[in-house]
Amino acid sequence: MACCGNCFCCQCCCREGETRTPEELAILGEIQVEEDEILPRKDYESLDYDRCISEPYMEILEGMNSKKTKKYEAVRWMMMFAIGVTVGLVGLFVDFFVRLFSQIKFTLVGDSIEKCSDKGCLPLSLLELLAFNMTFVFIASVLVLIEPVAAGSGIPEIKSYLNGVKIPGIVRLRTFLCKAAGVLFSVAGGLFVGKEGPMIHSGAIVGAGLPQFQSITFKRIKFDFPYFRSDRDKRDFVSAGAAAGVAAAFGAPIGGTLFSLEEGCSFWNQGLTWKVLFCSMSATFTLNFFRSGINFNKWGSFQLPGLLNFGEFKCSDGDKNCHLWTAVDLAFFVLMGVVGGLLGALFNCMNKSLAKYRIRHIHPKAKFIRVLESLLVAMVTTVVIFAASILLGECRELSSPTTHNTTLSGSEDINSTIRQFFCTNKTYNDMATLFFNPQEAAIHQLFHQDGTFSPVTLSVFFLLYFLLACWTYGLSVPSGLFVPSLLCGAAFGRLVANILKVKLGMDIYSGTFALIGAAAFLGGVVRMTISLTVILIESTNEITYGLPIMITLMVAKWTGDFFNKGIYDIHIELRGVPLLEWETEAEMDKLTASDIMEPNLTYVYPHTRVQSLVSILRTTVYHAFPVVTENRQNERDFMKGNILVSNNIHFKKSSVVSRAGEQRRRCQSMKSYPSSELRNVCDEQNAAVEPAEEGEDLLQQMLERRYAPYPNLYPDQSPSEEWTMEERFRPLTFHGLILRSQLVNLLIRGVCYAENQSSAAQPRLSYEEMTEDYPRYPDIHDLDLALLNPRMIVDVTPYMNPCPYTVSPNTHISQVFNLFRTMGLRHLPVVNAVGEIVGIITRHNLTHEFLVAKLRQHCITI
Amino acid sequence: MACCGNCFCCQCCCREGETRTPEELAILGEIQVEEDEILPRKDYESLDYDRCISEPYMEILEGMNSKKTKKYEAVRWMMMFAIGVTVGLVGLFVDFFVRLFSQIKFTLVGDSIEKCSDKGCLPLSLLELLAFNMTFVFIASVLVLIEPVAAGSGIPEIKSYLNGVKIPGIVRLRTFLCKAAGVLFSVAGGLFVGKEGPMIHSGAIVGAGLPQFQSITFKRIKFDFPYFRSDRDKRDFVSAGAAAGVAAAFGAPIGGTLFSLEEGCSFWNQGLTWKVLFCSMSATFTLNFFRSGINFNKWGSFQLPGLLNFGEFKCSDGDKNCHLWTAVDLAFFVLMGVVGGLLGALFNCMNKSLAKYRIRHIHPKAKFIRVLESLLVAMVTTVVIFAASILLGECRELSSPTTHNTTLSGSEDINSTIRQFFCTNKTYNDMATLFFNPQEAAIHQLFHQDGTFSPVTLSVFFLLYFLLACWTYGLSVPSGLFVPSLLCGAAFGRLVANILKVKLGMDIYSGTFALIGAAAFLGGVVRMTISLTVILIESTNEITYGLPIMITLMVAKWTGDFFNKGIYDIHIELRGVPLLEWETEAEMDKLTASDIMEPNLTYVYPHTRVQSLVSILRTTVYHAFPVVTENRQNERDFMKGNILVSNNIHFKKSSVVSRAGEQRRRCQSMKSYPSSELRNVCDEQNAAVEPAEEGEDLLQQMLERRYAPYPNLYPDQSPSEEWTMEERFRPLTFHGLILRSQLVNLLIRGVCYAENQSSAAQPRLSYEEMTEDYPRYPDIHDLDLALLNPRMIVDVTPYMNPCPYTVSPNTHISQVFNLFRTMGLRHLPVVNAVGEIVGIITRHNLTHEFLVAKLRQHCITI
Repeated sequence: MACCGNCFCCQCCCREGETRTPEELAILGEIQVEEDEILPRKDYESLDYDRCISEPYMEILEGMNSKKTKKYEAVRWMMMFAIGVTVGLVGLFVDFFVRLFSQIKFTLVGDSIEKCSDKGCLPLSLLELLAFNMTFVFIASVLVLIEPVAAGSGIPEIKSYLNGVKIPGIVRLRTFLCKAAGVLFSVAGGLFVGKEGPMIHSGAIVGAGLPQFQSITFKRIKFDFPYFRSDRDKRDFVSAGAAAGVAAAFGAPIGGTLFSLEEGCSFWNQGLTWKVLFCSMSATFTLNFFRSGINFNKWGSFQLPGLLNFGEFKCSDGDKNCHLWTAVDLAFFVLMGVVGGLLGALFNCMNKSLAKYRIRHIHPKAKFIRVLESLLVAMVTTVVIFAASILLGECRELSSPTTHNTTLSGSEDINSTIRQFFCTNKTYNDMATLFFNPQEAAIHQLFHQDGTFSPVTLSVFFLLYFLLACWTYGLSVPSGLFVPSLLCGAAFGRLVANILKVKLGMDIYSGTFALIGAAAFLGGVVRMTISLTVILIESTNEITYGLPIMITLMVAKWTGDFFNKGIYDIHIELRGVPLLEWETEAEMDKLTASDIMEPNLTYVYPHTRVQSLVSILRTTVYHAFPVVTENRQNERDFMKGNILVSNNIHFKKSSVVSRAGEQRRRCQSMKSYPSSELRNVCDEQNAAVEPAEEGEDLLQQMLERRYAPYPNLYPDQSPSEEWTMEERFRPLTFHGLILRSQLVNLLIRGVCYAENQSSAAQPRLSYEEMTEDYPRYPDIHDLDLALLNPRMIVDVTPYMNPCPYTVSPNTHISQVFNLFRTMGLRHLPVVNAVGEIVGIITRHNLTHEFLVAKLRQHCITI
Repeated sequence: MACCGNCFCCQCCCREGETRTPEELAILGEIQVEEDEILPRKDYESLDYDRCISEPYMEILEGMNSKKTKKYEAVRWMMMFAIGVTVGLVGLFVDFFVRLFSQIKFTLVGDSIEKCSDKGCLPLSLLELLAFNMTFVFIASVLVLIEPVAAGSGIPEIKSYLNGVKIPGIVRLRTFLCKAAGVLFSVAGGLFVGKEGPMIHSGAIVGAGLPQFQSITFKRIKFDFPYFRSDRDKRDFVSAGAAAGVAAAFGAPIGGTLFSLEEGCSFWNQGLTWKVLFCSMSATFTLNFFRSGINFNKWGSFQLPGLLNFGEFKCSDGDKNCHLWTAVDLAFFVLMGVVGGLLGALFNCMNKSLAKYRIRHIHPKAKFIRVLESLLVAMVTTVVIFAASILLGECRELSSPTTHNTTLSGSEDINSTIRQFFCTNKTYNDMATLFFNPQEAAIHQLFHQDGTFSPVTLSVFFLLYFLLACWTYGLSVPSGLFVPSLLCGAAFGRLVANILKVKLGMDIYSGTFALIGAAAFLGGVVRMTISLTVILIESTNEITYGLPIMITLMVAKWTGDFFNKGIYDIHIELRGVPLLEWETEAEMDKLTASDIMEPNLTYVYPHTRVQSLVSILRTTVYHAFPVVTENRQNERDFMKGNILVSNNIHFKKSSVVSRAGEQRRRCQSMKSYPSSELRNVCDEQNAAVEPAEEGEDLLQQMLERRYAPYPNLYPDQSPSEEWTMEERFRPLTFHGLILRSQLVNLLIRGVCYAENQSSAAQPRLSYEEMTEDYPRYPDIHDLDLALLNPRMIVDVTPYMNPCPYTVSPNTHISQVFNLFRTMGLRHLPVVNAVGEIVGIITRHNLTHEFLVAKLRQHCITI
């Protein structure tokens, strides 16, 4: 339990449960649930990527010809372009104001320091800086109070969304406004935060909102354009928006596309990817167009790189022996990758503890406490950079301009951002140069400044930055993590370069080492793979860095993964989001679909009375209901021991899973299962059982509980006390799935028919009417019951999804997972060999935690 | 029918069937099958990407722990590295010898021309060149005779393979040797072919072969390492190998990864993509490492770009107003995209006609005819470039070195490859400079030579190149298409630049226009999207070209798609490969699974006699058989009109598809279907029917034909003449799928039990034994029947795939297609609501042609 040495966060470093195997613990009977363990919460809704094709949709289809398809396609392309341009403009806006505010701040404070270093009025300069920073951070913090989900980087939220989990408020216009404005002030306020994460989030919101042609924040914004109002289309546009956000932030359109693939793709869709790339390109070049125009007055030219670019890595022309990196350097890069992974793991570990502390002690309190915390961090940060610059900075000589890059613009940039505080002419204060500049300029300094930074300065800078950035991430301000991580890592890389070059006299290119250090630390923190590699390659605009960056990121990720997850995954876990990983472990294949499915079903019949529907909807929280019919004849044969397959061959009976058999098996195995979390589930059921005898009575009593909430599903079929077990567990032939939102919609719009009518008399809803309220469908509790005639009958068959993907109960988990993940499903019915529904699988049945628990249980019962 | 004006290939330009709608034709009763129409052939086998999890696999699983998983994972990474390095070395080998041979050739011939231009012995020089070229081409052509699939670029084949179609011999060692050696000689032989396509194919073969640790060409190569011997693993490695091939050929590791995603990905697999990127990086940097070492004696440095690189696009430092491109240029780029698309369509059109001509008139003849054709093309090409250089070249002044790039290496390169044939000092022959250089050097000239080429030269060059490249592609030599297309397009782009710059006096950068021209033409020919964009961006190593390249490619693709398909797709179509597109058209959703499935099933029972299995295997060609049991009780109820769902609700009976009903419906609708291709299918069935009456008799007679091949499936159940229709169409409960290869394997290894034994007595095969013969499983006809006891019984249940993905008969085509395509399936059983198998869907049921035919039929029956 002390794998981290003197670190205070051993608990999170050590992977849980490593000290003793579950089996041992089970034998000892002492699986203690860790206090901190946060299990996936059940109150997150899923998105449905699978198109629910029901008949209203078919109407559209009938009228669908290639001309109409092409029109839709054209609108889609236009939307992609619009999203790209908008995201580019948002990036421009944020960048412009951050630059403006930072420039004002640093110019004023810088002047004041220059003056005061003679006069000795430094505290005044500090106060000035404090006033600036704290005002800005206050504004940012207040904006987050208005819309709490605007806090943080937004990448965990977008990742969850693209993974298929709906997080309330995440793609709303209000969130967008608070985020975009907030990040501007939090960056300008001198906090150690980046603007990249929030820009990606903003981009995603633009993607989600623009094609909807309506807004819920501003109800007046509403055009009559009801296309793209489905989870599927929205998710496609959100992918594009997020990609455009990356493209704008890093000038990396390909990286952005891969980012949205890596985080959100279920299946590779060539058409969509091509559109996403177009959207990203639009964003990058919109930004470049306006930046060239505004900043450099070169309208019509596009040659500027993205907001965060790393400058040109280039040997000076004169030096024939110079090389950016060699085969020998690769060994150092691998070592730096290991160190970066370790540092990243430490960072994540500390930040996790901090986040847990915040969840427990800060979030429950009054909201203004969060503002105070932000202000405290702002104050400490300001004081630290001020003190460090004055006390710890060293005066270094400026390198002579002859050894510089011949590209004039580059060398101009570099020397324009050095700070000479307290240093005589021709020298500069290295600490102040790093601290009293926008972060991007500091990164440039570390990558390209030929003049050396002293090892002490670099170490102090790294340490301070590391601690403060770790403290800052998770505050109630919009805050990205990319730039702080890069800066921190660049200092580390530059330190390594200094040691190798100056102390060991090796012939290396310092900039490359700084870049690799940045990549190593960033990789260790965020643990992204493909997209991060490509983003960094694109940001350097130098394909030859491909191999070293990739190897470093790989090593950093592997090292880090040995200890904990990436920072975004940690924060997703802390929120209890039921994220689905890429694939399940091979071990999980010991389980089958019937082991993990939810066998207690709430179902509806094809024709159901209004009163039954209302009662089902009011007493359950499920989002979809299987539509079933009963097949009693068949069932009796089965229960009497008659083997279903009437051949002479004795086909394994156990392979035909019936609901009754399954339920019995399950409840017995549950009782022997010791985990307290799952015991609760079981106890809940056992509560009614305890006094009764085992066996059939147990099942009957459970059934009473199950049927109680919705009596009279169909009036002639109300379950009565006299029913035998066979009758209760009669097989249900599966016919389709209907969503809660669809049922509520049918009730509200009065889609039903009277008992003496034929079902054809039922009014038909069009596709537009079915999707009008997307994405916030009315709740059943908002329904005025007085308006409904409870004896009317609703025919749900025209609206249900008649053929969702299904799996058989014996399907292995890897296959189930693959289908669910790849097709982006929300509900996966488990249907046995004779067409009876025996259970349903949702996202919660496939989370890693649930599978691990089930596997443990499986091992015990075997 | 004359949409192409004076072009001789109207047939292929006009999309088939556009002149009259199918309905009109149906009414007129005159759907004439075009002679040329090539329908997907049924003799291609599919690959199976879905893991067939049966119990032998489960044994492995039981022993599977996280340690073993990690070991496999590590081996996988090592294989990826090995593949990357090998592909890099192959690239190095090809490049080295191409350069060597070309250098020898051009030096000798060049010297001879220089001498002869004074002495007047030019015909001698021509003969010398002819000797060189024809020898080289002869060798290339003979190599292809050895292994015919080594002809062409290999991209269509790899695309088909990754799409899931097995093309015989495509990934064999012999193919690799012929391809790699052949391309070397065909490029050195002065043909207008590139080495990129063949390198991608070689890479794919390396990927397929290396992890197998055995070779069929060289039987001695066999290690005991039986992992990765499944279609699934092999396909993953082939993806990686193809990506590495692209990476080596273009120095574009990201582009390579996207290439294999675009062409072959079914579902986005993060882990795999990451490995593929690693493999690509390994290939790129292996190549760079050795090239830096060998060519420049800079061992340990990696800074050289890929084999095909476009040099550095850069404004000279002095020129402040220079810009690579501006917003205004974008309009020209769009126009160039349109023209590129048109030219590409024309190219494809001409090449398609030529390919059809070759299939009809050359391929059936003796093989040496193909060699003669290659020699003819080589001769014509040689004479043309010789004559053009002498007769049509203009002497242009060398641009002064001061206006050049300051990067010395660059300008050295450019001027070292100009040719001064017949020109006085300080001038050069522009036509000879383009023709008497390796193609890469010519591309560099067009992109970077400041000295202008005359518009006449460029036009002539473009025209000659266009025609000759079109003639060449499809010859029996290994021949890529990238470089010729790029060169052709670059000439076109440079021509546009010349006109704009010289004639209209616009301030543009010629290199950019040449690049965009190249992109436009290449895009118009190959119609690739994402991957081509990224490959070109990476080849230029200039991210700012992203937008123009992307827009040009988009426009070129759209324009071209208006006329015909991309060249690779055309060649795939000509081979009759049943390729699956990305998605189906929205219209197709009018069809459901039951409309397209194959309802005539050949099935096996869980326990079957050896004699029945042999008879089934010998009389059918199916690759998988459903394992079913009969459910007669249930079936009778149904056939008596008893509604299956025993509720009071009358659930739509038609939604429960039974095989009997389906079969009846189908045969009736088929008779009204007029397409001759499908009529054949129907006639085959009708043949037995014609004399009999309609109705049940029809069905019974068909059944006789169906059951005839395999009597006595199970001895007690032999179908007899007295059976009623109900008995014949008794429902079959579906239990799993078993592959032909598995059945043959079971028979060969004597896995069976005697009638008086229990099935537990049957010997068990391990996973190793089941996969030992991969990928060429023994054929049933190789089986010695004398060794088998026909009365023994085989229990197939331990080996079958008990839970493949299935669909319900009402599933819409888009969903079926999605599942099939995404999961990379080979067989998709269609199972109705009560668990009975009613049909099976394979790749052939989902090809575009089949769906179109079915839709036509559907419209008619409605």
